[in-house]
Amino acid sequence: MPDGGARLAEAAFRSDWAALGDVGRDARSGGYRRFAWTPEDATLREWFLGRAGGLGMEVVTDRCGNLWAWTGDPDAAVAAGRAPLVLGSHLDSVPDGGAFDGPLGVVSAFAALEMLRAAGRAPERPIGIACFADEEGARFGIACAGSRLLTGELDADRGRALTDAQGTSVADAMAAAGLNPAHVGRDEEALRRIGTFVELHVEQGRALIDESAAVGVASAIWPHGRWRLDLHGRADHAGTTRLPDREDPMLRLASAITTARAAAHQHGTVATVAKVHVHPNGVNAIPSQVTAWLDARGPDPDAVRRVVTEVSTAVGSEASEESWTPSTELDVPLRDRLATLLGDAPVLPTGAGHDAGILSAAGIPAAMLFVRNPTGVSHSPAEHAEEADCVAGIEALARVIEDLA
Amino acid sequence: MPDGGARLAEAAFRSDWAALGDVGRDARSGGYRRFAWTPEDATLREWFLGRAGGLGMEVVTDRCGNLWAWTGDPDAAVAAGRAPLVLGSHLDSVPDGGAFDGPLGVVSAFAALEMLRAAGRAPERPIGIACFADEEGARFGIACAGSRLLTGELDADRGRALTDAQGTSVADAMAAAGLNPAHVGRDEEALRRIGTFVELHVEQGRALIDESAAVGVASAIWPHGRWRLDLHGRADHAGTTRLPDREDPMLRLASAITTARAAAHQHGTVATVAKVHVHPNGVNAIPSQVTAWLDARGPDPDAVRRVVTEVSTAVGSEASEESWTPSTELDVPLRDRLATLLGDAPVLPTGAGHDAGILSAAGIPAAMLFVRNPTGVSHSPAEHAEEADCVAGIEALARVIEDLA
Repeated sequence: MPDGGARLAEAAFRSDWAALGDVGRDARSGGYRRFAWTPEDATLREWFLGRAGGLGMEVVTDRCGNLWAWTGDPDAAVAAGRAPLVLGSHLDSVPDGGAFDGPLGVVSAFAALEMLRAAGRAPERPIGIACFADEEGARFGIACAGSRLLTGELDADRGRALTDAQGTSVADAMAAAGLNPAHVGRDEEALRRIGTFVELHVEQGRALIDESAAVGVASAIWPHGRWRLDLHGRADHAGTTRLPDREDPMLRLASAITTARAAAHQHGTVATVAKVHVHPNGVNAIPSQVTAWLDARGPDPDAVRRVVTEVSTAVGSEASEESWTPSTELDVPLRDRLATLLGDAPVLPTGAGHDAGILSAAGIPAAMLFVRNPTGVSHSPAEHAEEADCVAGIEALARVIEDLA
Repeated sequence: MPDGGARLAEAAFRSDWAALGDVGRDARSGGYRRFAWTPEDATLREWFLGRAGGLGMEVVTDRCGNLWAWTGDPDAAVAAGRAPLVLGSHLDSVPDGGAFDGPLGVVSAFAALEMLRAAGRAPERPIGIACFADEEGARFGIACAGSRLLTGELDADRGRALTDAQGTSVADAMAAAGLNPAHVGRDEEALRRIGTFVELHVEQGRALIDESAAVGVASAIWPHGRWRLDLHGRADHAGTTRLPDREDPMLRLASAITTARAAAHQHGTVATVAKVHVHPNGVNAIPSQVTAWLDARGPDPDAVRRVVTEVSTAVGSEASEESWTPSTELDVPLRDRLATLLGDAPVLPTGAGHDAGILSAAGIPAAMLFVRNPTGVSHSPAEHAEEADCVAGIEALARVIEDLA
């Protein structure tokens, strides 16, 4: 890419970053709260429409609320036997999340396209840029809900019935956002248009720091799942109940936390207890119930299952599986091609789930690019990417477009 | 007491219990949610006004929102050099609390008075029945807030500024309930009227089961306190952050829970971690912060302090003291007189704080009667007292009135 291209990528990145910077930002923590089908989410979607419109792209919403911006007629390309290349990611966040997880992939896709156009090198074939709904699952509990509903991996009835902490269902939240939840379900028309999907994402670990590389390519997404532990106890007065008379579920919570860490260490996985509900959660009331969620992932699914079993045994309570995603090997020829194209970029596995993994599991050739994160921290306001690395990511995406489209 | 008296006590108890049974009751758990200055609290206060009015008693509200029903003119009695006997307790509850903790003391006081009147043996001197505000501290975090504000033990400005989980202050909540929060503060007029205070309460442990006694007398209230532990960590992605790179405060929460139990066992106290806030409390987000509250009590204040220090050391974080109530020895001649009056009733210490303890610490002669709880369980829907034991409690209160007034 010429210098002028890098300058344009930088300008486009800065302009989009400024436009998005305040949406759903918590002034105190500096983190973001951008949850599916909220007013913040609507603002982000409006930005997407405006950005695509400014590039003359037409935006369609699929049956599940995912947005697709197109440079031309994807159906004509499908009819001609060559389904388009699609880039993109998501705009929602975890509670108190960082600015980059999701938006970097969307912003970089628009910037890469703009950069190629300015250089007179934009492909004539249609290019798509996707914005997936509810990737983080922060509000309704299922990550990658938009792509899972799109592919049918998440049953439409189950998806519509999911509720948030206030009891609002996905169906009601989508209806309030102006969508028709009756349409939710596997969307053949939208899927047919995706020839190849490439998602750029900020790295959520430290591998690219260790490799001294700005951009890497994903190899696979670890198998991962979420389990719920219902720990029952007996409500009692914290001041008057003798220690041997207590059935205090907090002690089992402590055991779940320490066992998860020890078992993960032993079996070469990660495992985390990060969400807890205590009932009634009063200072002087021994809880009648504690509910804890276990997140466990690793390269080997059997090792992950062993960790869950050991935690379950330690607390003496069945672990209810809320979700399980098997290992997703991303398309091997595609990833090798991109790694070579990008000058032997490092190829890394990841413990995070992504829409690219959901599409890949549904048989769509999919790849991911990672942009270096100098803190290695993710799902946090401390998540970061240097502007120069973001520009390198945009340039990499531009090369991917030229190569694949 | 004659049989007729017992029958009348039973009828009064049943009628009041039926009137109160549905107020703030959670249909699913069977527990009560009766928090200070809520609509449920207003309903309970209306019941108190009606019950007192039915007995021809005049009700005054003191500066701090505590209610006082009087059979005559307490100020005339004070002027005559003999401040009245006051009975009573509170009507609010912990989250998902039982029916007896608080209301039993109020209901029994009315029933005892009614029983003496029916037998033509009611004293001519004024008798007071008190209903203390916000005894449990369930909404604003400070137990016995009504009596602490009344005696000045809790500073008026601090008390008014306390907020609930929604950010509503005590001042705003009281104003919404029709009180003037500017009046909150030590109330000399109300205090002057209390010659002696006797609070009947359901037992919150198993001592009376072991003693095979329906009614006991309190000796002392253990020193007790609440401490807050702020456990800071670093927000991070649960799937992508290697175990050694994590600063996960949940591990320190586990340590707080297990150390509290072990240290309490070692030092002969009780200690409980029953309230926890996890931020952001997302399944796949390593928390940036966990706040845990430690409740610790025991017969020896030094032992309680040692437990707190050991927990604080284990988690590597200062324990912030939110409240501390020293050991309260209830008035010794009074408790001995009541124990003898009630046929050498068992005399027991308790780990629970009570308004009687706050008044006692302020120099007012105060005593407590306990009614047997066959489950030994408290602050729970499983808390219980058999009707025959409740009637025995009412009869005991009636004898106390005859003896002291």
